[in-house]
Amino acid sequence: MKHQKLIFTNDVVSALESVLAEMEYNKAFFLTDVNTNRFVYENIKDPRIIGIGKCITIKSGDINKNLEGASAVWKALDEQGATRNSILINLGGGMVTDLGGFAASTFKRGIRFINVPTTLLGAVDAAVGGKTGINFNGLKNEIGVFNEAQAVIISSIFFNTLPLEEVKSGYAEMLKHGLLSNKKAFNRLLDYNFENSHHAELLDLLEESVNVKRRIVIEDPLEQGLRRALNLGHTVGHAFESYAMKRKNPIPHGYAVAWGIIAELVLSHMIFNFDSETLERYARFVYDNYGAFNITCEDYPALLDLMRHDKKSKAGEINFSLLKSIGDVEIDCVVASDQVSAALDIYRDLVHI
Amino acid sequence: MKHQKLIFTNDVVSALESVLAEMEYNKAFFLTDVNTNRFVYENIKDPRIIGIGKCITIKSGDINKNLEGASAVWKALDEQGATRNSILINLGGGMVTDLGGFAASTFKRGIRFINVPTTLLGAVDAAVGGKTGINFNGLKNEIGVFNEAQAVIISSIFFNTLPLEEVKSGYAEMLKHGLLSNKKAFNRLLDYNFENSHHAELLDLLEESVNVKRRIVIEDPLEQGLRRALNLGHTVGHAFESYAMKRKNPIPHGYAVAWGIIAELVLSHMIFNFDSETLERYARFVYDNYGAFNITCEDYPALLDLMRHDKKSKAGEINFSLLKSIGDVEIDCVVASDQVSAALDIYRDLVHI
Repeated sequence: MKHQKLIFTNDVVSALESVLAEMEYNKAFFLTDVNTNRFVYENIKDPRIIGIGKCITIKSGDINKNLEGASAVWKALDEQGATRNSILINLGGGMVTDLGGFAASTFKRGIRFINVPTTLLGAVDAAVGGKTGINFNGLKNEIGVFNEAQAVIISSIFFNTLPLEEVKSGYAEMLKHGLLSNKKAFNRLLDYNFENSHHAELLDLLEESVNVKRRIVIEDPLEQGLRRALNLGHTVGHAFESYAMKRKNPIPHGYAVAWGIIAELVLSHMIFNFDSETLERYARFVYDNYGAFNITCEDYPALLDLMRHDKKSKAGEINFSLLKSIGDVEIDCVVASDQVSAALDIYRDLVHI
Repeated sequence: MKHQKLIFTNDVVSALESVLAEMEYNKAFFLTDVNTNRFVYENIKDPRIIGIGKCITIKSGDINKNLEGASAVWKALDEQGATRNSILINLGGGMVTDLGGFAASTFKRGIRFINVPTTLLGAVDAAVGGKTGINFNGLKNEIGVFNEAQAVIISSIFFNTLPLEEVKSGYAEMLKHGLLSNKKAFNRLLDYNFENSHHAELLDLLEESVNVKRRIVIEDPLEQGLRRALNLGHTVGHAFESYAMKRKNPIPHGYAVAWGIIAELVLSHMIFNFDSETLERYARFVYDNYGAFNITCEDYPALLDLMRHDKKSKAGEINFSLLKSIGDVEIDCVVASDQVSAALDIYRDLVHI
């Protein structure tokens, strides 16, 4: 897998200008959704960026991340006379970068693309890994390819206008990367203050976080082993997320992961003697900033059942990626239901429910 | 680009059995069109091939090589419980291997596939190059990816039941490969007798031919240079093909190429002093087996115009891949209209019109 260029900047226009200057192309097309077209594209289009064709705009929202959306992009590229030597610049959240990456990777058997993520979660996700895709037949990301962008331009200036909840949701993935990295990185993340901070600081933390993910993905591009470290917090997190959906009271993905990590750090403590002080500090940060996901022991059977049906689990077992210590991960840990229930008890203590 | 395994055999079932035995997979699915399902699949399915799911069948014909066809395959894979660890076995002509290769390459971000081409042209095309794709928006192969099969199993037993015209059409590409290879290979091809020959001989010639293409593709997987050698005969060939279509009297692609090569060997002789005796022998073989594409000098302006609009041509010039001698190709030759017209004159002499 080739490695895409990652640029962290607060001057997106200059970054785009210099990335494009190094590439040979006949025309570049922006892809936006209706929101980023209105709120972001207008500030980005600039005469310094040369060879720009008409902006292609699709409907927003995960519900439109489908074959019709991809077809609309292919059609627009055809109509604008795009060739194999053209470039697509995906400007938007994960929906735009996922769909745009897929559309570019399959147009005329593949044209080059650049990602400019406009959400924090999109930045963490789209920055590395080369996952492109669309939903199909009711299944998320069912159709897609692994293919990295030529460059990803990451700027925190876009995040200023995001709702705080969306920033926090993306930040949960950064917390996870901190835990997979080292104490220093993790401590910096816990010192962050959502209410009172400058976006330059967030950009700095984001760069560190993305580099953690990048190192993991480079070692395991096709998700066959080590990359499953990135599932930390996600076995419980996905169960919380699905359960909340069933209770008709959905929670943001990142919140579910932030809470899921608490429970999985408890398991890490129980099984691998993960440091309890770190666990408590993490739980306090999450409780202070994300609150709690409310469950009672009556919810355990349903939650355990959801964990058993997680993609990562096989044959009715519950599978986790756990930590021995910060930065030392153990993948494919099968844990008995009793222990998971005990961990959920302690999760409830830690978030005061 | 990984290199797919190429197997030339007259025992397809054993070949499939041994290819699959070397792979780890949970289930394998055959993809056929309605014709290969009826005439080929029934002879191939065999209890020795284990872990086989339900056969997926799509409509036949290039007109159905589209997004609806790909969606049908994705849906069927979902319904049959295919996972990332499943395999798709494409059993059919170029339409099935192109579409099936694309569907597999994008299902869950890519599952493995095996090609079992059932036409001569399909075998030559699908055997190497990793081109997958579907038609879109009225454009041929507009959507697709470069991705090679795990294995291609080539057998000439399927060709026995093909109309002779279809065999000859595929054979034209083999003649081209012979010209790109060496005198010995080329001479063997000219000794072939369509009316009186055993399919084992054809398999042998096919293997040699495919290996020529393979060597070229390995050196230039993304069609950036040398691979354009494979365009030999195609600038004039495509013009003949399109012109015949306009005259409402379409000709098979391979026939157009066979005739196009005559004209382009004439150009090779005019510009690079390509051996005239070889040119004459080639023209005689084509005339004897393919007849002639009938044109007069009144057709030249339209034909030249079609050549100017060929994908390979830029800015109104006419671009060719020509030969200095057998096996010694020169790509990106721009030739003046006068010379092309002169070559068409000599083409007409050579095919006695």
